[in-house]
Amino acid sequence: MSVKKEKGLLIVLSGPAGSGKGTVVKEILDRYPADFCLSVSATTRAPRPGEEHGVHYYFIDKPAFEERIGQGAMLEYAEYCGNYYGTPADYVQKQLEEGKNVILEIEVQGALKIKERFPDTLLVMVTPPSFSILEARLRGRGTNTEEDIKNRLAHSRWELSNLERYDYAVINEDGRAGDAADEIAAIVASEKKRTCRNKDFARIFFEN
Amino acid sequence: MSVKKEKGLLIVLSGPAGSGKGTVVKEILDRYPADFCLSVSATTRAPRPGEEHGVHYYFIDKPAFEERIGQGAMLEYAEYCGNYYGTPADYVQKQLEEGKNVILEIEVQGALKIKERFPDTLLVMVTPPSFSILEARLRGRGTNTEEDIKNRLAHSRWELSNLERYDYAVINEDGRAGDAADEIAAIVASEKKRTCRNKDFARIFFEN
Repeated sequence: MSVKKEKGLLIVLSGPAGSGKGTVVKEILDRYPADFCLSVSATTRAPRPGEEHGVHYYFIDKPAFEERIGQGAMLEYAEYCGNYYGTPADYVQKQLEEGKNVILEIEVQGALKIKERFPDTLLVMVTPPSFSILEARLRGRGTNTEEDIKNRLAHSRWELSNLERYDYAVINEDGRAGDAADEIAAIVASEKKRTCRNKDFARIFFEN
Repeated sequence: MSVKKEKGLLIVLSGPAGSGKGTVVKEILDRYPADFCLSVSATTRAPRPGEEHGVHYYFIDKPAFEERIGQGAMLEYAEYCGNYYGTPADYVQKQLEEGKNVILEIEVQGALKIKERFPDTLLVMVTPPSFSILEARLRGRGTNTEEDIKNRLAHSRWELSNLERYDYAVINEDGRAGDAADEIAAIVASEKKRTCRNKDFARIFFEN
């Protein structure tokens, strides 16, 4: 509850490969469709079969992407293998103003950049219960080579070494992505009652 | 969820007269008896009819109280009208270690003293929805003189001027103390997932 109409919260969800964060995000959107939406990234890479513009990505060309960067119209962006990936600001801003909480599912470096630029952003790390379970999940997929698995585990070590720069850690137990989704929704609801997010609370209180 | 057995959290609940914080505390204890307990204050004043030692207060004499102060065995204390009131540390410590969240229902000055000494303490202000509703509640009791009401309203202004030093503000709507109790329980559960409260999360994660 709040004394005024609430703006939405920007939530960055990260998590190592094997954390199941994609499933957790899906559960959040399924369970709380009125409260949460997912930000769709823009990219300059070509769509893969089955990928839809505006659903999986906004597919735009390089000059258009660079123009947006120049306008400050990307919340964050990065270049991988000669292609840009980024978060268009306009959609996010619009949803936040309408009171929706916007989820960005991005990796650690992008997350930290966003937090630096927008300190109100909530950084949530989704983790497996333990490193051994993470390893078991990666091996259980059966589709990764030994080298892949080693690389992913090494990368997840680095990701988790940044944990203290995140606000919250939510454990995604095997087959319990719905619980993790509920926990994240509760975290967001609680965050909105923080006095530091309601600096005009007292003023509005006394005016009413 | 957490990677280790959790210690309880120390929660200070404050709120102006008319905020209904007493009812909210009762609802928390009724709804979550396994997770929360109430700290009982010590006092040197004489018991009033119906007050029980160990339930409403620990009634101890002045030399005993002063001895405890000297031992640092009071989390906080204050003197009113020639009597001491304070929070014995031993009971609180024991409950926290057993994983119970301990609620202290104390006023603003005591709350700020505790936060200074124990920065992990969660300060929660229970407020009515608005100042006009607060006034209506005080008048509705019918037992207060006009001067009483004016004094209480002035004091509540001062209390709410300290709101930003609290962590959370929870609104207690008319007849909805149960909702406020649920919100506080959710806040406490979420706080436990903050990375700053789980500094050994990564270490334990990698060991398991």
